[in-house]
Amino acid sequence: MNQDYIQPNPWSLIEEGFDKERVKSSESLFSIGNGAMGQRANFEESYSGPSFQGSYIGGVYYPDKTRVGWWKNGYPEYFAKVLNAPNWIGIDVGINGTPLDLATCSNIKNFKRELNMKEGWYQRSFVATTSNNIEIKVVTTRFLSLSHDEVGAIKFEITPLNSDASVVFKPYIDAGITNEDSNWDDKFWNTTKVTSQKNRAFIESHTMKTHFNVCTFMQAHLVYGNTLKATPDSENREDLFIGFEFAETVKKGEKVSLIKYGGYTVDRNHEADKLTEAANIVLDQASSLGFDGLLEEQKKAWAQIWEMSDIHIEGDVKAQQGIRFNIFQLNQTYTGTDSRLNIGPKGFTGEKYGGSTYWDTEAYCLPFYMATKNQEVARKLLKYRYNHLEKAIENAEKLGFKNGAALYPMVTMNGEECHNEWEITFEEIHRNGAIAYAIYNYTRYTEDYSYVPEMGLEVLIGIARFWQQRVNWSENRNKYVMLGVTGPNEYENNVHNNWYTNYMAKWCLEYTLEQLEHVQQNYPADYNRVMEKTHLTNDDTDLWKKVAAQMYFPYSEEHGVYLQQDGFLDKDLIPVADLDKKERPINQHWSWDRILRSPYIKQADTLQGFYFFEDHFTNEELEKHFDFYEPFTVHESSLSPCVHSVQAAKLDRMEQAYTFYLRTSRLDLDDYNKEVEEGLHITSMAGTWMSIVEGFGGMRIRDGKLCFAPKIPDQWEMYSFKINFRNRILKVTVTQDGATFDMNEGDTLGILVDGKKVTLT
Amino acid sequence: MNQDYIQPNPWSLIEEGFDKERVKSSESLFSIGNGAMGQRANFEESYSGPSFQGSYIGGVYYPDKTRVGWWKNGYPEYFAKVLNAPNWIGIDVGINGTPLDLATCSNIKNFKRELNMKEGWYQRSFVATTSNNIEIKVVTTRFLSLSHDEVGAIKFEITPLNSDASVVFKPYIDAGITNEDSNWDDKFWNTTKVTSQKNRAFIESHTMKTHFNVCTFMQAHLVYGNTLKATPDSENREDLFIGFEFAETVKKGEKVSLIKYGGYTVDRNHEADKLTEAANIVLDQASSLGFDGLLEEQKKAWAQIWEMSDIHIEGDVKAQQGIRFNIFQLNQTYTGTDSRLNIGPKGFTGEKYGGSTYWDTEAYCLPFYMATKNQEVARKLLKYRYNHLEKAIENAEKLGFKNGAALYPMVTMNGEECHNEWEITFEEIHRNGAIAYAIYNYTRYTEDYSYVPEMGLEVLIGIARFWQQRVNWSENRNKYVMLGVTGPNEYENNVHNNWYTNYMAKWCLEYTLEQLEHVQQNYPADYNRVMEKTHLTNDDTDLWKKVAAQMYFPYSEEHGVYLQQDGFLDKDLIPVADLDKKERPINQHWSWDRILRSPYIKQADTLQGFYFFEDHFTNEELEKHFDFYEPFTVHESSLSPCVHSVQAAKLDRMEQAYTFYLRTSRLDLDDYNKEVEEGLHITSMAGTWMSIVEGFGGMRIRDGKLCFAPKIPDQWEMYSFKINFRNRILKVTVTQDGATFDMNEGDTLGILVDGKKVTLT
Repeated sequence: MNQDYIQPNPWSLIEEGFDKERVKSSESLFSIGNGAMGQRANFEESYSGPSFQGSYIGGVYYPDKTRVGWWKNGYPEYFAKVLNAPNWIGIDVGINGTPLDLATCSNIKNFKRELNMKEGWYQRSFVATTSNNIEIKVVTTRFLSLSHDEVGAIKFEITPLNSDASVVFKPYIDAGITNEDSNWDDKFWNTTKVTSQKNRAFIESHTMKTHFNVCTFMQAHLVYGNTLKATPDSENREDLFIGFEFAETVKKGEKVSLIKYGGYTVDRNHEADKLTEAANIVLDQASSLGFDGLLEEQKKAWAQIWEMSDIHIEGDVKAQQGIRFNIFQLNQTYTGTDSRLNIGPKGFTGEKYGGSTYWDTEAYCLPFYMATKNQEVARKLLKYRYNHLEKAIENAEKLGFKNGAALYPMVTMNGEECHNEWEITFEEIHRNGAIAYAIYNYTRYTEDYSYVPEMGLEVLIGIARFWQQRVNWSENRNKYVMLGVTGPNEYENNVHNNWYTNYMAKWCLEYTLEQLEHVQQNYPADYNRVMEKTHLTNDDTDLWKKVAAQMYFPYSEEHGVYLQQDGFLDKDLIPVADLDKKERPINQHWSWDRILRSPYIKQADTLQGFYFFEDHFTNEELEKHFDFYEPFTVHESSLSPCVHSVQAAKLDRMEQAYTFYLRTSRLDLDDYNKEVEEGLHITSMAGTWMSIVEGFGGMRIRDGKLCFAPKIPDQWEMYSFKINFRNRILKVTVTQDGATFDMNEGDTLGILVDGKKVTLT
Repeated sequence: MNQDYIQPNPWSLIEEGFDKERVKSSESLFSIGNGAMGQRANFEESYSGPSFQGSYIGGVYYPDKTRVGWWKNGYPEYFAKVLNAPNWIGIDVGINGTPLDLATCSNIKNFKRELNMKEGWYQRSFVATTSNNIEIKVVTTRFLSLSHDEVGAIKFEITPLNSDASVVFKPYIDAGITNEDSNWDDKFWNTTKVTSQKNRAFIESHTMKTHFNVCTFMQAHLVYGNTLKATPDSENREDLFIGFEFAETVKKGEKVSLIKYGGYTVDRNHEADKLTEAANIVLDQASSLGFDGLLEEQKKAWAQIWEMSDIHIEGDVKAQQGIRFNIFQLNQTYTGTDSRLNIGPKGFTGEKYGGSTYWDTEAYCLPFYMATKNQEVARKLLKYRYNHLEKAIENAEKLGFKNGAALYPMVTMNGEECHNEWEITFEEIHRNGAIAYAIYNYTRYTEDYSYVPEMGLEVLIGIARFWQQRVNWSENRNKYVMLGVTGPNEYENNVHNNWYTNYMAKWCLEYTLEQLEHVQQNYPADYNRVMEKTHLTNDDTDLWKKVAAQMYFPYSEEHGVYLQQDGFLDKDLIPVADLDKKERPINQHWSWDRILRSPYIKQADTLQGFYFFEDHFTNEELEKHFDFYEPFTVHESSLSPCVHSVQAAKLDRMEQAYTFYLRTSRLDLDDYNKEVEEGLHITSMAGTWMSIVEGFGGMRIRDGKLCFAPKIPDQWEMYSFKINFRNRILKVTVTQDGATFDMNEGDTLGILVDGKKVTLT
């Protein structure tokens, strides 16, 4: 555990006491978002200490240039960079003419941050003495509206405590922002129009190259006692900036407030030349509701989300806080309302990992959204990939594949690959498998098979064609081999016969063959349409059968386990437990070659296969592989502990499962990987949900039936969660004494617990 | 063969006829240099067609930022970029007020370029009609002085042919230059002073970050009939530019000339604040000699070089031209006068491959410089690495090595690694072996053992420590293995047990142990000093012995060959001959993953080991390995055909050896790899020399004796070369009838030909 300053609380994140060293961490942890936009918990007023400024808009990115070193054929021209967007939260404050800056204040007391997850707002408060000796109390509250997702609201309250004071609020919007990870001092935004109108201001900008048009806007007014000042005293307009001034002489002990609404209108939702107009409409709505009205709506919207997606844990407040934090962040990042958006690994909390869509979406997030939302949300995630099929085929063509073979990008914003490290872009091809698996997972969970004939089959055919072309026949082994891949464990690059990838490829080929048959028999019109479009021949499918049947899998007779890849046993097999703790995490201490030749596993790789295909293996096999690989696993990917938690629970190793659960659920809160400053690990948060529902809850679909094998860690009194299964809501409650299953409707689903049918109350 | 426009000629490169498509190729081929500076054959006058501008100064580079994608621990902070330097060759020309620009001229006749290698000058001439209908004849001659290596000279002659004409010459120097490979529009130079003085001009600049201070200078005068105009008519000074104007009304049929001297003074040779002063002195010298005087010196200097380093071939003018072009370029790039400089892969002909020093220096260039120069030059090349030992130890420490282990950089300017692709920087570690091998090669060739106790032993100890730490014990194989390397064949990355690297490591350990013993016995004072400095223990050396004795080498019983690396036989082993020619070179057509999983070999890898250690293997073994690997070798590295030529000659496959010889010697002239536009392959040119001397000549050192096994291709009447062997000059002449060996001195060296002692004439 690396930090523990966040107070345990079931519904809130609370930080007390001001520590400059924690500002960047807290800026990540207290981030807020509403699916369409989000921002780090930067101070509204200027702050001269270390800070990482970040406001982000969904779907807005920049294609960063990356021609460095030896260029490889097939690389995309760009690396998608998550862009820091113009700042609308800024409110500079002057106290008797001196700027408020916490870094220069003295005697800072009662500093507190609270992120209220139940109601969806963030508040910061403190008492401090400014450098000109005025003691003030500050309370600032803000949220990004879920119901009006283009607007956010801030209330900034100041009370001078030791004398009257002249208080000036300077709310502003600023397009002169930079990216933290820009080494090139590049400007990514071009500002075309800066306008104002009474207490409203608008900056129209577009991103360079990608030409996303955005209007950043604000409206502000001051409230003091009974007076409301809606007209600024003055205005300060620069090329990329517009600010207002609201001044007030405030009596000692009395409170003055600045209310600010702000946000973005973007050309994904409006015509590019009508963004300021659209912003005006948004502000009309916001100001007619007012801060309190907006906040009421916010509470209602979050109550609705929690109603379905909460996991309630009793007896262990840290575990409770962890899971709620994860569920909260997932809902802040992706609401499922716009099929053009997806779930970026850092959500709206940082810049790292450019691009929005990784295999994380299919492999980790889909189950969460399937179970806690209407199934249309999950279908949207699948459709996102169908919409990108053509680009996946083009992407494969660039790499020399033919005949409609599809390779989905490792990282994408719009279907194009936008990452370029050869060992990832060209070799981490198992991502294709996760996309096929998601189709399987969706249909078995929702029983909505229609996606397959309508769209999924084409995706599967493209993927199967890729796998068939990607293997080669080894005379030496008399098998098909797959050379030069990177598995889920990215601490190995360019390995041969990664068991997970080979297994996934074989499964994809067989699953596609099955779906072809099923669609041919049951949806002949769709079948004919797809055949016409894809020109699939018997030669193709015969080859698929051959490859699937003769795929090579590295296996150690001595250890009785499948080997992660060829040559794994040549490594110096020292368990992680024997490593010097000072050298952990190894990715921050070891050079890449040392990591590569070590046996250490960044995240579940062979065990990821055992997770996806657990019904293909016995518990004994799982145990053998778990015991072989877990000791070499460093869990330096956020996607790792959850899989191990689920498997430990399955093996009845509840203490270990609980430890992994805490690690996954409090990864960011406790900053296990010492990088929370850079932002949160959003996609892996779905893995935390999985640890409870599939791990402790033991939820599975088997033969079309919903099954449970409920267990509970010793540390907990009870936990409960709801599941939307095939459009029916089921509530599962597990205590130390047993489990109960409540259904909304009277009918009986085929629920099995540990293999036995259960009567529903 | 991809281009054939360079006319066969024994001593010159000649191009006739103007073709815009060939301009960039010719700019590379006709490059000139003098060890301290060099330049592409850009036109002096402005040219609006496609061109690649390049002037380069030895030792001047820029540390380019490369933080892109996922950063790896241990990466250096920069990638050394070869910098395009301020332009001093520029001479704009106006004819009756219209700028001369070959791209807009009509009726271009008699266009000719000549690079006279015998005398070291470059000339371009043509007749053309300007857009305002003046037909002019232009002859421009230039060279970079070998004897005054800070200055070059240009004579630009114009004769109006169809009428009198007003001719204006505008000689200039320009620091407003950019790099061709800059994607970032970065400026690399900061200009601090622009001054002039009558017909001299000076621009002082320094490179950003590296702060190399350079004064770019020129002096110009006009000659028309008997008049010499040394004062410009006007001057045009801008922030980064200074130009003169010399105008003259020239009678039809009469010639007007502009003489220009220019170059650079740099703070490697002068105090940084006295560069303009130094430039004035250089110009004083140049102008007192005059253009003709400088040219006379140039001819003498080149005559001296050729006296020793020429290889004369009769009966095959293309082969003759090829080898002289190679020898000429090597001498243009590195003269051996400054031990801080080295031999960059592109010399002064292009920007690609940042940095100056690769393993090419030791593996390919050293034999050429040993044999054709005083042995002090070769010793300087070794000392260069000794001077960098401390940085090589730091470099290894960054990667987690300890106890004085040294890893020399893959690419360097000053001893620091300056390349950052993990598969190269961290894994192409065989470079360390070449540096040890060069010590062995130098001592056996020169019999100067003193380098070992004085400096070499420390280098060897650092290298041996690295190898011992880089291997790990494999329980599985009961051997030491070396995981995660890139061999000389860069078309494989992160392979395990690359035979060449393992063999090199074993040899280094054993060679170091031998030298330790030898130095202990014969140079006890040096031994004690080195022991004290390196803290070498018996535990260290015991471990070295163990690793050397138990190193694993992948071997195929079936094929009777050592395998390039583990798993090589899993590949789809289709010979290169069966590849579609349209897909060659594969590095321009295939994605990197496809290359990696293919069996294709960029350059000799296992065969490189057979080249270095040929006395360790029988001819039968060589033949077996040659026949196994050659069919998969695509020779897409310039360093490849020479090794194969030497080996084919050894196997008496003279036709094949001859084909490889032509390929290596005319690689750039005939543009085999379709990239000559980017510059020449300088370091591999030493491989061409090797193809003749070691290949056809069969020169070897065996048991301290100089041996020859002279052969001659059917296409040749004779060839001859000189060798400086242990400070004695030997001339070898080989004809279809046999070989003769002429020595300068009367004494008999132990020369063996095909194992029999030879009487010298």
